[in-house]
Amino acid sequence: MLDSNVTDKLRSIVGSEHYKDDSEALVTHSYDATPMLQSLPDGVIYPSSKDEVSAILQLANEHKIPIVGRGAGSNLCGGTVPVHGGIVMVMNRMNKLIEIDTDNLTATFQPGLNTKEFHAAVERKGLFYPPDPSSMVISTLGGNIMECAGGLRGLKYGTTKDYVIGLEAVLPSGAVIRTGGKLYKDVAGYDLTKLLVGSEGTLAIITEATVKLLPAPRYKKTMLAMYKDIYAAASTVSRIVGSRIIPATLEFIDNPTLRVVEEFNRIGLPLEMEAVLLIEQDGMDEESVDRDIESIMRICREEKAEEVKVARSAEEADKLMKARRSALSTLARISPTTILEDATVPRSRIAEMVLEINRIARKYNVQICTFGHAGDGNLHPTCTTDARNPDEIHRVEQAFEEIFEAAIGLGGTITGEHGVGIVKAPYLEWKVGAPGIELMKGIKMAFDPNGIMNPGKIFAKASRKRLVIQR
Amino acid sequence: MLDSNVTDKLRSIVGSEHYKDDSEALVTHSYDATPMLQSLPDGVIYPSSKDEVSAILQLANEHKIPIVGRGAGSNLCGGTVPVHGGIVMVMNRMNKLIEIDTDNLTATFQPGLNTKEFHAAVERKGLFYPPDPSSMVISTLGGNIMECAGGLRGLKYGTTKDYVIGLEAVLPSGAVIRTGGKLYKDVAGYDLTKLLVGSEGTLAIITEATVKLLPAPRYKKTMLAMYKDIYAAASTVSRIVGSRIIPATLEFIDNPTLRVVEEFNRIGLPLEMEAVLLIEQDGMDEESVDRDIESIMRICREEKAEEVKVARSAEEADKLMKARRSALSTLARISPTTILEDATVPRSRIAEMVLEINRIARKYNVQICTFGHAGDGNLHPTCTTDARNPDEIHRVEQAFEEIFEAAIGLGGTITGEHGVGIVKAPYLEWKVGAPGIELMKGIKMAFDPNGIMNPGKIFAKASRKRLVIQR
Repeated sequence: MLDSNVTDKLRSIVGSEHYKDDSEALVTHSYDATPMLQSLPDGVIYPSSKDEVSAILQLANEHKIPIVGRGAGSNLCGGTVPVHGGIVMVMNRMNKLIEIDTDNLTATFQPGLNTKEFHAAVERKGLFYPPDPSSMVISTLGGNIMECAGGLRGLKYGTTKDYVIGLEAVLPSGAVIRTGGKLYKDVAGYDLTKLLVGSEGTLAIITEATVKLLPAPRYKKTMLAMYKDIYAAASTVSRIVGSRIIPATLEFIDNPTLRVVEEFNRIGLPLEMEAVLLIEQDGMDEESVDRDIESIMRICREEKAEEVKVARSAEEADKLMKARRSALSTLARISPTTILEDATVPRSRIAEMVLEINRIARKYNVQICTFGHAGDGNLHPTCTTDARNPDEIHRVEQAFEEIFEAAIGLGGTITGEHGVGIVKAPYLEWKVGAPGIELMKGIKMAFDPNGIMNPGKIFAKASRKRLVIQR
Repeated sequence: MLDSNVTDKLRSIVGSEHYKDDSEALVTHSYDATPMLQSLPDGVIYPSSKDEVSAILQLANEHKIPIVGRGAGSNLCGGTVPVHGGIVMVMNRMNKLIEIDTDNLTATFQPGLNTKEFHAAVERKGLFYPPDPSSMVISTLGGNIMECAGGLRGLKYGTTKDYVIGLEAVLPSGAVIRTGGKLYKDVAGYDLTKLLVGSEGTLAIITEATVKLLPAPRYKKTMLAMYKDIYAAASTVSRIVGSRIIPATLEFIDNPTLRVVEEFNRIGLPLEMEAVLLIEQDGMDEESVDRDIESIMRICREEKAEEVKVARSAEEADKLMKARRSALSTLARISPTTILEDATVPRSRIAEMVLEINRIARKYNVQICTFGHAGDGNLHPTCTTDARNPDEIHRVEQAFEEIFEAAIGLGGTITGEHGVGIVKAPYLEWKVGAPGIELMKGIKMAFDPNGIMNPGKIFAKASRKRLVIQR
């Protein structure tokens, strides 16, 4: 509970209708898209400007009140669950698209802007912003930046980090910094821009961002390759990239995922296949896109695909991509609890990783579907389970722990695009080592000496134990 | 002077032939490619492994001895001048290309590897590593990483930062960290990889790096557009990119640079022109490269280019690019002292920046040639002067100070690709503000609490004064 002296000040900063602490507001901001995590905040605030953000942070810093920045709450690592209480700062009033600069190929916006809406605005100018997290219909760009969102186009186009070139951010002290700019080259000191991207709200609140844009590709083509042998599908991925072809999208969908997606979408996916690759190439020239797709089809056949087919129309291609993007929400319909993970390996180890996931699922007798961005080694093993069954949940936790271990053993990482948050914090040391954790804590201290920024995230109290927090 | 107890230990770590403190070694490591900066180290050491690096750093840390990492010493910001004495650590024995991984499209190498040699090895595999600083014939990849080297292809392909995805680095404590990996997506904690790139040797010594590679473009075409009006040349740059065409290279060369380059290369550059754009496009398809070049030629003519011509052969194209790359060394021949700067502005402000540079040169009565990477807004105003003329040098310093101010006023930065080092340190606050400097100092503290890593760089004792150090 916050002191009424503090809440009065908060109300005076944003106007009393923009600070809420009724139970409805608190409950709806006690969780995010991550299953089995819930913790009530003490208040929810909706600032409308960087000056308001600055005043709020100064006050919170003075009183050592936790501040949890929040976009749409679509993250999957517990990143916006206020585990230490405090104030959830919702950025949705700061949702302005400030500028699309067609001379410099940049866009500047406030953090609360919806990702999909931004994509549409950029595309209307013949331009292209590649990062496309599957949550983009609801997610905000600020959330994407804080989690360094990836998506289906990471292999060819990179992730959020590769596009953010300038930020305005408010430090816990209330000081406002500006990093980078409309600059394709800038080496003036340490790169605070890239450091803030993916910092999960633990360092500062961003209030404005500038991103690079690309000319929009003029053509694209979408295809499916279907396999009875999971290993053949996975090894196709290495063969394609080894042949010097970088598709825009190269997605892997296993049989259990396929069945569920087909059941709810009815788009004619082949239920008897063990794995499907969904592949898209784009480019400025029809001929080069066609040539790449033909080469890919030949490789798929050489790698023993049962069937290879190209989408006959833009509508069919669109349906396929939408079905893939809906995999998580579709899987969520078939079980009370759906836990989606994010293990990532070097692309050449995809086949081994898929086999490991399946072995581990059998070992712990849990149901794991696997789909994901095979082209960049980023798999989403997804467990359909039931939080009310503690015995099964315990086995699920053990299975995921072993999956993270396997990923790291294959030269991979515990999280490719979802972030550390609460969920991966106990495993971070496995990836970055004790000295890596110490450096990160030192960086945190430089930004946030009082530890008010999203406390309880990234850094775990103890390693090697999967946490389920229900405050 | 180091204690003999320390030097004995250093000799025992690397073998006595790999530690030098004779006056020849000290003098040859007292300067780098930056004019007018010199300072003697106390010793020069040549480690051969990360274990040796670790032992040296531990010892230096214990005795608070400065450590200045050094590749080829080709930097232009005084980055490897040992202004506080101490030990220069030359990485040229650690120059192994460890692996080119064609499945994952990555390469892994030690920091002392020569940039040009690496390019050649990568190209033999049909792959491509875009960062191409003009110093690449002599520079090392470790130096490129520490300075975040750019080059002629930044507009389309980005800079060193966009390619480094994994590092092994030794901290001042002697602890070894590994960041990232062969991973296109990795959000496990703060991005230490990107933080180390461009950290100018002030945080850690890198001992191994993994970079992304691209499939090599199959075609390229090179052209020249010549202008009597500088402003028309500069506005062509905006028009090209505004037309959704991103050339691989888009270089600007002004008349004074042109004259000098032609005098020493004799490649038929038109001496009566005020400015020349050197443009290269590459791609996987001949048709698309041709189409882009044709569109660019049309734009150049619309923007009142006097003459537009395409290189008739690969040799001719190569000659043009080499002439451009040699601009600095050529200018260096015509005057006792050549000071090359690095001001960078948003691409759309290039024309204004060129006019500002010329105005400032006239105001201070100094000779400034300007060339650079117009496509990414990164200009290199270069002053041909004489360090023995203190009055002129004073005016040169005033002129550059005003140029940095103008760049920042246009939304730009004090350094696009050369780094802060000693030369830009007094101006860093202009770009990042006092809170930005404080954050950077906090980050430095997290890595290097005793301040032994390349002291005197990035952070100035006082702002707003151009430093010339002669110890």
